[in-house]
Amino acid sequence: MSVLIVIPAAISVLALVSAFLFNRSVVAKAQGTDRMKEVQGYIRSGAFTFMLEEARVMGITILIIGAILWVLFYWEIAVAFWIGSILSMAAGFIGMNAATHANARTTHAARTSFKEALSVAFSGGSVMGLSVAGLALAGLVIVVVVFRKWYDPASLHIETRYLFGVSSLGVNFIRGALIVSAYSMGASLVALFDRVGGGIYTKAADMAADMVGKVEMHIPEDDPRNPATIADNVGDNVGDVGGLGADLLESFIGAIISVIVMALYIFVGRGNESIQGLISRLGLSAGLNETTYWWIFIAPLMIVAGGLFSSLLAMLYIRFSKRQEGMQQVLMNATRLAAVITSLTTFLFCWLSPLGWNILGEVMLGLGAGIAIGFFSEYFTSTRFKPTRELARMNQDGPAVGVTEGMALGMISTLLPVITIATATILSYQLGGLVGVAFTAMGMLSFVAMTVAVDTYGPIADNAGGIATMAELPSEVRERTDALDSIGNTTAAIGKGFAIGSAAFASLGLIAAFMWSAIGTADKVVQPQLPIVGQIAAQFSPSGSPIVVGAYVIAGLMLGAMVPYVFSALLIRGVSRTSAILVEEIRRQFKENPKIMSGEAMADYKRCISITAHGGLHKMFLPAVIAILTPVVFGLIFGRYALGGFLVGALLSAIQLAIFCGNSGGAMDNAKKYIEEGHFGGKNSEAHAASVIGDTVGDPLKDTVGPSLDILIKLMSVISLVFASLFPIFPIFV
Amino acid sequence: MSVLIVIPAAISVLALVSAFLFNRSVVAKAQGTDRMKEVQGYIRSGAFTFMLEEARVMGITILIIGAILWVLFYWEIAVAFWIGSILSMAAGFIGMNAATHANARTTHAARTSFKEALSVAFSGGSVMGLSVAGLALAGLVIVVVVFRKWYDPASLHIETRYLFGVSSLGVNFIRGALIVSAYSMGASLVALFDRVGGGIYTKAADMAADMVGKVEMHIPEDDPRNPATIADNVGDNVGDVGGLGADLLESFIGAIISVIVMALYIFVGRGNESIQGLISRLGLSAGLNETTYWWIFIAPLMIVAGGLFSSLLAMLYIRFSKRQEGMQQVLMNATRLAAVITSLTTFLFCWLSPLGWNILGEVMLGLGAGIAIGFFSEYFTSTRFKPTRELARMNQDGPAVGVTEGMALGMISTLLPVITIATATILSYQLGGLVGVAFTAMGMLSFVAMTVAVDTYGPIADNAGGIATMAELPSEVRERTDALDSIGNTTAAIGKGFAIGSAAFASLGLIAAFMWSAIGTADKVVQPQLPIVGQIAAQFSPSGSPIVVGAYVIAGLMLGAMVPYVFSALLIRGVSRTSAILVEEIRRQFKENPKIMSGEAMADYKRCISITAHGGLHKMFLPAVIAILTPVVFGLIFGRYALGGFLVGALLSAIQLAIFCGNSGGAMDNAKKYIEEGHFGGKNSEAHAASVIGDTVGDPLKDTVGPSLDILIKLMSVISLVFASLFPIFPIFV
Repeated sequence: MSVLIVIPAAISVLALVSAFLFNRSVVAKAQGTDRMKEVQGYIRSGAFTFMLEEARVMGITILIIGAILWVLFYWEIAVAFWIGSILSMAAGFIGMNAATHANARTTHAARTSFKEALSVAFSGGSVMGLSVAGLALAGLVIVVVVFRKWYDPASLHIETRYLFGVSSLGVNFIRGALIVSAYSMGASLVALFDRVGGGIYTKAADMAADMVGKVEMHIPEDDPRNPATIADNVGDNVGDVGGLGADLLESFIGAIISVIVMALYIFVGRGNESIQGLISRLGLSAGLNETTYWWIFIAPLMIVAGGLFSSLLAMLYIRFSKRQEGMQQVLMNATRLAAVITSLTTFLFCWLSPLGWNILGEVMLGLGAGIAIGFFSEYFTSTRFKPTRELARMNQDGPAVGVTEGMALGMISTLLPVITIATATILSYQLGGLVGVAFTAMGMLSFVAMTVAVDTYGPIADNAGGIATMAELPSEVRERTDALDSIGNTTAAIGKGFAIGSAAFASLGLIAAFMWSAIGTADKVVQPQLPIVGQIAAQFSPSGSPIVVGAYVIAGLMLGAMVPYVFSALLIRGVSRTSAILVEEIRRQFKENPKIMSGEAMADYKRCISITAHGGLHKMFLPAVIAILTPVVFGLIFGRYALGGFLVGALLSAIQLAIFCGNSGGAMDNAKKYIEEGHFGGKNSEAHAASVIGDTVGDPLKDTVGPSLDILIKLMSVISLVFASLFPIFPIFV
Repeated sequence: MSVLIVIPAAISVLALVSAFLFNRSVVAKAQGTDRMKEVQGYIRSGAFTFMLEEARVMGITILIIGAILWVLFYWEIAVAFWIGSILSMAAGFIGMNAATHANARTTHAARTSFKEALSVAFSGGSVMGLSVAGLALAGLVIVVVVFRKWYDPASLHIETRYLFGVSSLGVNFIRGALIVSAYSMGASLVALFDRVGGGIYTKAADMAADMVGKVEMHIPEDDPRNPATIADNVGDNVGDVGGLGADLLESFIGAIISVIVMALYIFVGRGNESIQGLISRLGLSAGLNETTYWWIFIAPLMIVAGGLFSSLLAMLYIRFSKRQEGMQQVLMNATRLAAVITSLTTFLFCWLSPLGWNILGEVMLGLGAGIAIGFFSEYFTSTRFKPTRELARMNQDGPAVGVTEGMALGMISTLLPVITIATATILSYQLGGLVGVAFTAMGMLSFVAMTVAVDTYGPIADNAGGIATMAELPSEVRERTDALDSIGNTTAAIGKGFAIGSAAFASLGLIAAFMWSAIGTADKVVQPQLPIVGQIAAQFSPSGSPIVVGAYVIAGLMLGAMVPYVFSALLIRGVSRTSAILVEEIRRQFKENPKIMSGEAMADYKRCISITAHGGLHKMFLPAVIAILTPVVFGLIFGRYALGGFLVGALLSAIQLAIFCGNSGGAMDNAKKYIEEGHFGGKNSEAHAASVIGDTVGDPLKDTVGPSLDILIKLMSVISLVFASLFPIFPIFV
């Protein structure tokens, strides 16, 4: 193991220590009035109850899957899987703990100073950001150090394991590749549960609270009389904090390990002539030998360590900024700072390594593409630009036109991000082949800590506003927290761009790694034969045997492209069905106890929390099963080539749907806000009523479906990667 | 040329003569009152004005594209293209002429007898069905007979043409293949204009008429006081009659010519070893020689001739059925009858031909898959089944939930049709490789005349109802026409299933033909080399040169998958923007002339018609340009392999989106109708108000976007097929 591993190890420890210090600085702040403490207590306990219950459900699933991995492969694989899942859960808990500490303290700080409130909220977000990246990196370092034997170039080989001692059931794999893949799969699985469960929770509570509170009872957002108001605030934490953290942790790991897996396969197959062309494409001036192998192996860990260090600097810059105004500028500057320093550390790495400059180009491509996609998201969803203003204007023609136009906006907004992704794919491929694509994904995710911090800051500020209203503080406090909230929007849009862009790239990397391990081990040598590799397009070949595979690949593409639609439908239904039950409960409370409305009696918050939690946990099950089982079942029946088609089909469909859902929902939300600012009749106008309907339609699209699709494609890809060797090469019935 | 060609020739003539007779039988009926004649006159003149103006716009485009084909290739190519476009336009005009004759006559018949009204309406539809299939087949027979030299096995070869005499600008192609492809492209181009222009027209008029009429002024559907009511009825004709006819004509031709193109390439390459495997897969017991070549060549023409003959028998069965009741059963029986007789004629063909039985299996697969997909559409959109009833129930929770659930329903409804398409692809591939897939597409479309007849019957009945209301006939007449309308719904759902299923299969066939001609001619021999053919999956190959192509193919897949989204967005906007202008106009008329509302003055129908027509023509331009230019530009820059990826990506995305849009819109429409029948509070309940919003959102999805997507993928594929030889093999800048 290269001694350089101490650098990512040290930086991950530094990040975790900093997270601890940020957390302590938050907890040390005053919490405010008793009422504020009470509300905060409700939110904390609601959030933890849900997360613990979710962890219990996940725990069983993870135990079973780990046991299967143990039986099928080796104990190391199961252990790596468990480490990945536990760290992902831990990141969610740590971040949510910090966020639910920070919310009331942000409110309290907002009673005196805007700047101080921002500092508290952002510190809370920083805890999450640093924990996510720190834990992911630390876990990976531990895994590769503990199992270093399987990464040692001297012993690197493709091994065969006969399942249950049956000689015809032999599976081939590189054990080191399987270990890191299983680690990544553990993180992905938890991320999916967190995103889907949390996403259904948060939007069901939001929809129900609005539908009865705003529309039927005409009471404002976060009014303490609304029985669902605490559930709504809990949702911000479990969905937007816990879910988001697990999501980006998973992308981060996926991007890193796809580079490592490919490095292992290239090294094992280096004697093969067909691999030579690829090696020359990597731009290794020294050629591939044990030394350069270690450099490639360590490269992703070093580069993300640089990104993590850069993020920490950017957070400190914000924390200790003396500016009192223009905080939006400070946040933007910090994000830019993180990007620039990451480029510099990558530059340094390339300079010192014998790997040449291509990697720098790939990482910069990732950074650039991520920022570009973020800008496009902002252009289409921000009230500062024409599309959302135009959408607001169209709402004057009623809700049907508003929703229709919102959908059209989301559809057309796929244009530029997809062109960006396609261009970055081509360029990074030119620079380093598939490995180059994986490095580009990594580049996009390298300063993930900063992205998560900014994204977590949003829900904290949102919660702070909720607490201000529920604790009946003066309206100036709410105004300050609202201003806080809106500052994060621009940077959050960039974060969303990174999430979707990196999901696309990380999946491409994972699919490539899958195809490699699937084909590379098929003949016990890393030599994917071209006639066999021609699986997708073999459909179009008028020749012999590969044609048989072709039809299955086409069928795989079609079926794969269908999965994201069915998955999305189940999520939307999960939200609307849970919300419908909650609506009944809220109506019941208002009806049976009129004192709630007059403020003389407390609403039963806990019942609403428990209904929402039950819905979230219950409705996350089927989508999760689809994500886990479809690639395995498909692979077992139709074989490895068809599964490659299946994954590509799912990726294509998911990219478009995720952008469409995210931007449609975002624009409809902001069009409503734009009208509320006084345009086109302002609040209580017909345009406003129409835009509220549009916002409600868009909510599950942008906060439940879009983010979950990002994970769906990564999870399906990494599951295929882990189980690749189990699948037959050709369909079982050919 | 085989003497058997006289059979399709004779049957196409028989179909056209029958169409003429059906038309005469319609025109011979009485038209009813003066007011009815007047309304009918308005509708006819509005529809013809629009179609003529549309034809003018198309005429210029077609002239230019034909000239380009002439310059680039040969005069035969241009002529075939023009024949295809002119016949497609003619089919639209003939059908619309019959439909606008039949509408008032159906109303008049409904004053006395339900059965008689059905007979008139269905005769009108039959004219359209027989014209579409008859013209398509006749045109194809003419093209292959006139240019028979280029199909003669003795002279069949790949030729090279040096563009503008420049020796480095050589393009390779089989001239006969190019001729039929250009014929198909002409039909597709007209179909796209008809579908998009007509689709925008019909939904813009519908939305605007409803928004002002029903919602603001509280006057019923088709009220003569509504200035947009005639435009709405014109829309049914230009969109649902003209657009649909051109659409199915194009599918029909596309499916036939992809078989012919592949037959040509197989024959030219028969000496090549790699083709042998394919030939053995075709199941030709006699092997491939000049005789069996002719049999394969003639097979699609013979099979569709059988389908056309079967359709004619089924129409006569309906026309002369003595039953007075249970007409729904008669329509269903007739459709089944057409399917059964088509199977029998195909059986007969296979029995007499030396081609073996595989083709029968492929055709039956197409018939079965089409019927299955139709049933799934009906299951998800009919009020007879749970999904739509459940959607109606959810509308009680307000419009946001209604729209959200409607979208979820559309998304989940992709499951079964896509599984059906994938399964049929695998099975037909097993039976006959890619040629088998093309035969399956043809099977689905073989009795297209019947499908078109039933689908056209719907808008005629719809128009008849409009005329009944506008002419202020007794309510029992309207009740009869409504009953007439609802009878067609089940069979129309099956028709929609055939449209989407056949679009998927026909595109697969066309894409396959494209890849064949693109790769087959690349080296002046029909021998697509596998290492090159492995273009899509070469992405995953760690080997040398093909990798470069791989990245472009992946980029092509992504960009291709994005195009249907942008295209759909433009259509939706076309509808909502045109509708917004029309809404202003209707409001203006009501406001400036209060006598319109009191019935003392006539509304200015013509102005509304002219605004809608202008919108339809104006907004169809950009989507059409995208459909025509993107594959050409992409192919010129990125080359043939990447274009293959682009087309596959577009196909995958379009299938899912088309099913989603079609079923979402259909279910939201019918959920409204279900509520109007008295469920969940009936008319004027909150659930009804919510469902009206859902219906309006769904309208452009189901009637503009869904059907246009079907054409988009076929048109892009056939354009690629025609221009394939112009594109570089690899990206220009590699």
